Amino acid sequence: MTDIAFYFDFSSPYGYLAAKRIDGIAARHGRGVDWRPFLLGVVFKELGGRPLTQYPLKGDYSRHDFDRSARRYGIPFKMPDVFPRPTTLAMRAALWLRQHDRARARAYCEAVYDAYFQHGRDIADVAVLLDLAGDLGPALAEGLEDPALKALARAENDAAINEVRVFGSPYFLVDGEPFWGNDRLEMIDEWLARGGW
Amino acid sequence: MTDIAFYFDFSSPYGYLAAKRIDGIAARHGRGVDWRPFLLGVVFKELGGRPLTQYPLKGDYSRHDFDRSARRYGIPFKMPDVFPRPTTLAMRAALWLRQHDRARARAYCEAVYDAYFQHGRDIADVAVLLDLAGDLGPALAEGLEDPALKALARAENDAAINEVRVFGSPYFLVDGEPFWGNDRLEMIDEWLARGGW
Repeated sequence: MTDIAFYFDFSSPYGYLAAKRIDGIAARHGRGVDWRPFLLGVVFKELGGRPLTQYPLKGDYSRHDFDRSARRYGIPFKMPDVFPRPTTLAMRAALWLRQHDRARARAYCEAVYDAYFQHGRDIADVAVLLDLAGDLGPALAEGLEDPALKALARAENDAAINEVRVFGSPYFLVDGEPFWGNDRLEMIDEWLARGGW
Repeated sequence: MTDIAFYFDFSSPYGYLAAKRIDGIAARHGRGVDWRPFLLGVVFKELGGRPLTQYPLKGDYSRHDFDRSARRYGIPFKMPDVFPRPTTLAMRAALWLRQHDRARARAYCEAVYDAYFQHGRDIADVAVLLDLAGDLGPALAEGLEDPALKALARAENDAAINEVRVFGSPYFLVDGEPFWGNDRLEMIDEWLARGGW
């Protein structure tokens, strides 16, 4: 039973909401989740597009729907005053942690999301990112300077867009089957229960 | 108990899929549905955007998801060879029928959708639209020539975009609460059951 691949950007409200539920859904079907941060900004640059909130009409709808979707599942959510934030550093930090300890990396991703979407902290600020890493902060600070980490991040984004064909956040791969959007979690649940259709 | 307003474009695959389920969901909660065709082309012109299938990566995903979503609910669906089709005439025809008989207009909307998304017929062809109107065909042919009908269609689109703030298809208003997308029907069902949240 392969893990569900979960692609997300740290500035994605729907990614945050999905992060709160995907592990539970996967676990019901005996699956793990592989948390894979990527940069939506690179997608926008390569494929076109911009943050949801910046589209006319759809922007207002989205803001309304972020809150409504969070309330539906009882997930704490507060739209940050500054949105979006650049997530290049946060992604690199998560990748660095992933190389060291996958469970810690997963917890770190959730901590970054909570910092941004519950507490409005500046997740583009390296000091915040190091703080969230706790006792691993000093080692992370060094790791972030490593050019190999930047290359790894570039390769990850490249693979996400060009191989996995990720175009939005959150994006899921379930045994090769792609699902896009927080509102597809119910469909993923049903897909796993029925073994596809 | 007010009707659910259902906004859709006749060239919208997700609009077609929603059309097959919205009446049933509404009926479970003692609601009717007000079927309101509009022109997604006008939205694209005024707000920007283009058919889903024309976006890189997302286009391929969409085509895959149209089929998958149809299979999920056992809805017959065949992506038309020519997509999208201009829907100005189909919208006007539906509006004309609506002025005469709302039940017939609703059945007509479904017939137009079936003609396009099951049988690949050219719903931009006036002969097809008249044929689908059955015994009302000759009267509809006359009605389509009426400048007042064109003005009504313009006013409808105008109100959909500028008052209701419709930006995609399908789009629903449930007691003033907006929902966008076929994949939000489950949320609408829950919204009606819980009386909102």
